[in-house]
Order: sequence, then structure tokens, then C-alpha cells
Amino acid sequence: MNIEIIGIIAAILTTSAYVPQAYKIWKTKKAESVSLSMYLVMCLGVSLWLVYGIYYRSPSLIAANTITLVISLIILYFKIKSKKN
Amino acid sequence: MNIEIIGIIAAILTTSAYVPQAYKIWKTKKAESVSLSMYLVMCLGVSLWLVYGIYYRSPSLIAANTITLVISLIILYFKIKSKKN
Repeated sequence: MNIEIIGIIAAILTTSAYVPQAYKIWKTKKAESVSLSMYLVMCLGVSLWLVYGIYYRSPSLIAANTITLVISLIILYFKIKSKKN
Repeated sequence: MNIEIIGIIAAILTTSAYVPQAYKIWKTKKAESVSLSMYLVMCLGVSLWLVYGIYYRSPSLIAANTITLVISLIILYFKIKSKKN
């Protein structure tokens, strides 16, 4: 098995892992036990990975981190919204 | 600013982001709104990143993904434990 296939599967899994979390908060309207700090730090970190990817013009870094940033921002939005309610 | 510094800060942030989530579940003993699927998929994905890092003998990939795997496994353990109670 080509090692790059392992890398691509790894990237797809670690990127799509956030989808069930976003879906769960959206469906249940509850985010009490989800950590606000985690998603604040994650959004900042993923943004820096994106800068790094853009610098190296790496399509995989740019694609994976753009998707992760969007889903993390959605989770962050749900979390902040649920705190206000 | 050196782009590699951006990369190192990005790696530290996206790795340490899981710490407040693990701490929150441990402290409150609640993990209701944390997604089980997210951490199952994340552990699998990070394990594959680790395989990829070991293949390329990349210290940063190995270090970052070992730490993320350990913290994700702790969150997964807390989540499964809280479901049983």
C-alpha cells in the first residue's frame, strides 16, 4: 500500500471528525460539555496551519485546514450561541 | 518572521487545543454534548498520521500525533465512561 494513501485517508479522517460534533450540537441544541477554549485555540492553530500551507503552496494543507477551520468556526458559533441562551 | 516558527506555533496550538476539553470532562464528569463519533474518527485518523510520520521519520509529525492520540484517547475514555454512568 502506498504511504501517500495512508496520508490522504489520515487527512480525510482528521478533517471530517469534526462533522459529527457540529451535527450533534446543531441537532440537540446543547453544547454544555463542549470546551469553548478548545475551539478558540483550534481555530487559531488551524488558521496558522493555513498561513503555513499558503506559504508553501501546498494544496493538501490548504484544503484540509480550510475545511477544518470552517467546521471549527461553526462549532464555535454554536457553542457561543448556546451559552447566551 | 520565519515561516517555520508559524508552523511550530500552529502544531503546538492544534495539539494542545484538546487539553481544555479533556480537563473540562474530567472536572465536570459530564460529556453529554461531546460527540463519541468525533473522537473515534479522530483517534483512527491521528493513528494513521502517526504511521505516516513514522514512515517518513518526521519528528514533528510523530511528536504532535502521539500527543494528540493520547489526549484524544483520554477524552474517548471519559466519554465512554460517562455514557455507562
